[in-house]
Amino acid sequence: MTTPEQRARSLGIAIPDYADPPYGGRYGADTLKAFHRIGDLVELSGITPEDRAGERTHPGVVGDDLTVEQAREAARLTAVNALGMIRLAVGSLDNVAGLSRALCFVRSTPDFDRLHEVSNAATELFLDVFGPGSGAVGRASIGVASLSRSNCFELWLSFEARPLSGA
Amino acid sequence: MTTPEQRARSLGIAIPDYADPPYGGRYGADTLKAFHRIGDLVELSGITPEDRAGERTHPGVVGDDLTVEQAREAARLTAVNALGMIRLAVGSLDNVAGLSRALCFVRSTPDFDRLHEVSNAATELFLDVFGPGSGAVGRASIGVASLSRSNCFELWLSFEARPLSGA
Amino acid sequence: MTTPEQRARSLGIAIPDYADPPYGGRYGADTLKAFHRIGDLVELSGITPEDRAGERTHPGVVGDDLTVEQAREAARLTAVNALGMIRLAVGSLDNVAGLSRALCFVRSTPDFDRLHEVSNAATELFLDVFGPGSGAVGRASIGVASLSRSNCFELWLSFEARPLSGA
Repeated sequence: MTTPEQRARSLGIAIPDYADPPYGGRYGADTLKAFHRIGDLVELSGITPEDRAGERTHPGVVGDDLTVEQAREAARLTAVNALGMIRLAVGSLDNVAGLSRALCFVRSTPDFDRLHEVSNAATELFLDVFGPGSGAVGRASIGVASLSRSNCFELWLSFEARPLSGA
Repeated sequence: MTTPEQRARSLGIAIPDYADPPYGGRYGADTLKAFHRIGDLVELSGITPEDRAGERTHPGVVGDDLTVEQAREAARLTAVNALGMIRLAVGSLDNVAGLSRALCFVRSTPDFDRLHEVSNAATELFLDVFGPGSGAVGRASIGVASLSRSNCFELWLSFEARPLSGA
Repeated sequence: MTTPEQRARSLGIAIPDYADPPYGGRYGADTLKAFHRIGDLVELSGITPEDRAGERTHPGVVGDDLTVEQAREAARLTAVNALGMIRLAVGSLDNVAGLSRALCFVRSTPDFDRLHEVSNAATELFLDVFGPGSGAVGRASIGVASLSRSNCFELWLSFEARPLSGA
């Protein structure tokens, strides 16, 4: 029986460490935080396709200056970043009881209708790491005119954490 | 004192059965699921205007190739589908303690400003079925450039379930 | 040690009273409500830039007929209205244990990429009122083609309430 942390290692996924330097600092002041936990519900802040230094990796518009394949790369990287946020929130991927919902925003042309193919790249990674059951997620994919800093993708994710020990 | 199940029956609403065949299968693999429950909070996956076979009933752009009245039909059908998802999640409409929030995405032209009239068709159905109090819902209506599979409407709903018996 | 209510008073913020007249009435019938509480999670209905009479203060499109500075005014006013909704939900700003997430919709031109500057005006107000820690919030900023009633901004907020006394 393998765990999510073991699967992430087997898959060779390079998960960013949002504890050092701390997430959010680059956004100025301390108005933003990475997550909030209420009981076992964890709501994550918006996650974007960027490297650990905060440099955007996939700015642009899907269907115009970005292909579906490039957008899928962006969505997969965003899901990898989500793994880092999950670790920050609950210490380990093994402390996830189940993913809840993923609202996926795709910056795209009005006639672009392959949104679900883009989002699939994120949710397929979740399934690979968390396995059937806890790795499945509710989802919607929304095509929008613009996103912060011209990113082509943004993820709005909630999940259920395992109860805190002693709780 | 009538219950939501009784009211749905009186109104002659044909609620789809998402248990058979199971929801999500057509989206490929098992990356997606219909809902997640954390305590008494239930978060539903994105719900669209389609028939039980997954065929889209209302593709298009509101304000362009779809009228407000057609979009309202789409929103109402989506709310009916939500009733099916709620049954799948908690067994019966009578197990809903209260709706929480409905985020309504409307695929529309940039100058379309009657979004709330479209969303009203969904939330009016909820009120008819669940009654005052538990049938009222928080809401926002967002006009977007595109939605998955060119649907004109998508609903992102959360609700409170009655505590599990014995819990 | 000052409290959020004391800070709001020091800052001279005029917080609307959504109890009188009750929120939602103007939207017709009783399909909508201002908030739902599940345990200590509170999910607020969509909040817009408007005065207490429901008159829109900032209709328009950011990057076209509205400047960034005007959009920031709209976002700040929306955050002030959120304070009124929070009071309605939990009685006092002092009953907030922590903000959770703010999904910010900005009605803007497709090439507008300063969404985060607009949203900052809302989240800066939250930090000023609730202080570091409980005033920080998870966030995403989404540029959309249209919003209900042509508003330029809408806020979708969740927060954690302090446990009810006696609970």
